[in-house]
Amino acid sequence: MIEEEVLKIIKPTEEDKKGIEKVLEIIRERLNKLDFEVEGSFRKGTWLRQDTDIDVFVFYPKDVGKEYLERNALNDIINRIKDLDYTLAYAEHPYVIVNINNVEVDIVPALRVESGDKAITAVDRTPFHTKYVTSHLDERGKDEVRLLKRFMKGIGVYGAELKVQGFSGYATELLIIYYGNFRKVLEEASKWKHPIKIELTKPMKIFSEPLIIPDPVDPKRNVTAAVSLKNIATFSIAAKYYLKNPSIEFFFPSKKVEEKVKGDVLILRLNLDEKSSEDIVWGQIKRSVNKIERALKQYGFRVIDVQAWGDTNNITIAVQLESKNIGQYYLNIGPQYYSETIEDFIQKNDNIWVGEDGRLYSIKERKEYDAETIAKKNIVLKVKYNIESYWLQNTEDQQIMKFLRKTPTWLK
Amino acid sequence: MIEEEVLKIIKPTEEDKKGIEKVLEIIRERLNKLDFEVEGSFRKGTWLRQDTDIDVFVFYPKDVGKEYLERNALNDIINRIKDLDYTLAYAEHPYVIVNINNVEVDIVPALRVESGDKAITAVDRTPFHTKYVTSHLDERGKDEVRLLKRFMKGIGVYGAELKVQGFSGYATELLIIYYGNFRKVLEEASKWKHPIKIELTKPMKIFSEPLIIPDPVDPKRNVTAAVSLKNIATFSIAAKYYLKNPSIEFFFPSKKVEEKVKGDVLILRLNLDEKSSEDIVWGQIKRSVNKIERALKQYGFRVIDVQAWGDTNNITIAVQLESKNIGQYYLNIGPQYYSETIEDFIQKNDNIWVGEDGRLYSIKERKEYDAETIAKKNIVLKVKYNIESYWLQNTEDQQIMKFLRKTPTWLK
Repeated sequence: MIEEEVLKIIKPTEEDKKGIEKVLEIIRERLNKLDFEVEGSFRKGTWLRQDTDIDVFVFYPKDVGKEYLERNALNDIINRIKDLDYTLAYAEHPYVIVNINNVEVDIVPALRVESGDKAITAVDRTPFHTKYVTSHLDERGKDEVRLLKRFMKGIGVYGAELKVQGFSGYATELLIIYYGNFRKVLEEASKWKHPIKIELTKPMKIFSEPLIIPDPVDPKRNVTAAVSLKNIATFSIAAKYYLKNPSIEFFFPSKKVEEKVKGDVLILRLNLDEKSSEDIVWGQIKRSVNKIERALKQYGFRVIDVQAWGDTNNITIAVQLESKNIGQYYLNIGPQYYSETIEDFIQKNDNIWVGEDGRLYSIKERKEYDAETIAKKNIVLKVKYNIESYWLQNTEDQQIMKFLRKTPTWLK
Repeated sequence: MIEEEVLKIIKPTEEDKKGIEKVLEIIRERLNKLDFEVEGSFRKGTWLRQDTDIDVFVFYPKDVGKEYLERNALNDIINRIKDLDYTLAYAEHPYVIVNINNVEVDIVPALRVESGDKAITAVDRTPFHTKYVTSHLDERGKDEVRLLKRFMKGIGVYGAELKVQGFSGYATELLIIYYGNFRKVLEEASKWKHPIKIELTKPMKIFSEPLIIPDPVDPKRNVTAAVSLKNIATFSIAAKYYLKNPSIEFFFPSKKVEEKVKGDVLILRLNLDEKSSEDIVWGQIKRSVNKIERALKQYGFRVIDVQAWGDTNNITIAVQLESKNIGQYYLNIGPQYYSETIEDFIQKNDNIWVGEDGRLYSIKERKEYDAETIAKKNIVLKVKYNIESYWLQNTEDQQIMKFLRKTPTWLK
C-alpha cells in the first residue's frame, strides 16, 4: 500500500533519532541550569526524517517581560553558544539558530505562563501544545500525522509561514487527534465546504476564517486562522482525488512538466540586497502580487494569473495576461442625453457620440497601457532590490513550466 | 438672424413653385378622370427648395382591395405615363416614380377611406394628414416647419426611412402645430426626457416608444413610433446647444473634419449586386451592425463603435475596437472546490489551478480571435454582395474621418 511505502521513507529510524539526540546533548550542556525544554515535532514524535530542525525553548519567569527576552535572555543564550555555528533569526521576537552536524537547532526564549490562554508572546503557548499532543497521540497516531504532513507538503499546503499560508504542524496533529487517522482526515476534508468547524474544544470567540480549529489550550485562538482558502480548497480537492486514485505523486510530486506559453507572460526576477526575515519579505511579495493584479485589471488588462515563488533573496513574479496589447484608447461611457452633466462631459471629452441607448460616449486615452511598467510600479518592497523583466518566449525553467502548466501533477 | 438667413436659402421662390406646377400639369393631364390629389410637403406648403419630389395619390374605392391597387391600378397608371422617364418603386406596395425636368413625381395608388382611422394601407391616411396640417398651419407656421426640417436634416435626424430612423415630415409639422414655432420646439426638446408625450389628441392605445405623438387623424397610431432613441437624444442635445449658441453649422454642417485612427478600425466595403429597396437593404445592414457588435463582444473584443453608411448599393461598415489583439487564450472561471461539478471541470479543462477565492480556474483557447473573420461572418445580407475589408491605416475619406471624429461639428 502506498501509505506504508511513504512511511518507510518518512519515518525516522532509531539511528536518525540518536543523531539528533547527540546534537541535543551538546545544546543541553550549553543551556545548563536554565529552564529549558525540547519542543516541536521532534519532542512530539511527529517529525519527518528529512526535517532536521529542532526547537529548544528556554523559559523565563513571566514577570521579566518581553524586553528582557529580546535582550538579556537572548544575550545569555548567545554567550553560551557563540563558539558554535549560529545565526540570529526573527519571528515575533528574536531567537538563535545553531547548526551542528547539519542539524538546525532553534533556541527560542519564552515566558513561563500557567496555561496556554495566559500566553504573553506567541511562543509561550508552545509547551502546552506539546503536552496536549503527546497526551492525545499514540505511536500509530504519530505516523498518521507524518503521513498527513508529507501529503500536505507534497501538494504544497504545509507550512504556517506567510509564503505558504498553509497548515502548521500543530494543525496536522489536531486534525489526526480529531479524525483519528490520515485516511479519515482525507475523507472528511474531501467533503469540506467553508466555514469548516473542527472543535476539539468549544471556541471562546466567534471566528470568521474559512477553517476554524479552536486551540484546545487557548480556545479564543483559531489554530488555522492563517490558512488561506486556496490551501483549504487545494487540500480538499487533493483529498478527494487521492481517495479515488491513491498515488505516490501526492506525497512526492516528481513529474517533470512541459507546457507552452499561453497568452503573454511577463517574468519579473527580483534580487534582494539585504537579508530580511522570510515572513517580512513574503508579506511584501504577497502584497505586490495583489497590487500588480489589481492595477493591471484596473488599467484594462485581462489577467489570467499572477504568482510568485523563490526564497528570501531571489524571487520570481510571473504575470500572465490574455494579451499585453490592450490598445491606447478605450470606450468611455457618459451620461444620458437628459442628464445635467452632459455639458461638462462634452467639454471634457473628445470623440463624442450619442449611442442607440441615448447615452453619450467618448473615446479616451489610457493613462498607461504598458503592462511591464504597471507591474514594476506596483512592486512594494521596502528593501533594496534589483529587477530584471522580460516577456517570456520559451523556457527550460521548471518553476516557470509549473506556472505555465498550472494543473498539479497529482491532479491530472 | 441665423434663422432668417436659413429661410432665405430653403424657402422656395414663386419661380420654384411655378416650375413644379408646370410638371404637375403634365401629370394631371395623364391622370385625367382618375380620382387623384397632390399630397405631401408641396401640397402642404412645407417643402424645402432643394427637395424636388412631389407626391400624387390616385384613389380607388376601398372595396377594390389591396390586390387591385398592386395590379390593375398600377398597370393603368403605368399605361398613362409609359412614354415618360419612369421607374417602379416599392414601399408597403408598389408605386411609380416619374422624372420630369429633374422633378421626381411619385404616383401612389391608395384606397379612398372615410377617415384616417379607417385606413387599410399605410398610404390611405395621407389625405387626412394633408387636411389636418393645411388646416392647422398658417404661412408663418409653414416656414417654421421648413426651419425645423432643415435643422433636423443638418443634424442627421430627419427621414422616416429605416436607414435614418428619424423624424418624418408629418412629425415636424405636428411639432410646429403643437409648440407654435421652431424656437419653441427646440426649447421644449432641449428639456426632453423619454418617454415624451406630445398629445394633439388623446392616444387610443398605450404606446411604449420613447417619443409618443398620437396621430390626430388616427390616435391608435404613434406618428414617431420609428424614431430611434439615438435620434431623439441627438435632437434634444442639438436643440440645447443651438439655443445657447445658434450657428448655421446646425442647418448646413460643412466643416471638413480630420482625425487620427484611435484603436483598431476595420473597414468593410460592401458592394451589392442587385437593386433592392432601400428599407429592405438597410434593415439587413442595421441587423448586421448589431450582430457584428454583439458577436465581437461575445468573443471578448472591446468594441468602441460600429457604424454603417452609404446608399443602397455601396455600403461601408466601420468597426472600431480598443485592440484587435485579444490573445488566443482566456481565463475560464470554474466552480468552487466543494461543487459537485469539479470533477467534470477538471476532466474537460487544462491548465487548472485553485484561486485565492477557492474557485477552480483554467485557461481556454478562444474559438475565434480574428475580428475580421467574426465581422464578416456576421453580415446578414439576403442579396449577393462583394466585400473588401482592411484595417485602417490612414485615410482621406470624409465619411471615415467623420466616423473617427464622432463629435458632430455643430457640437464642438
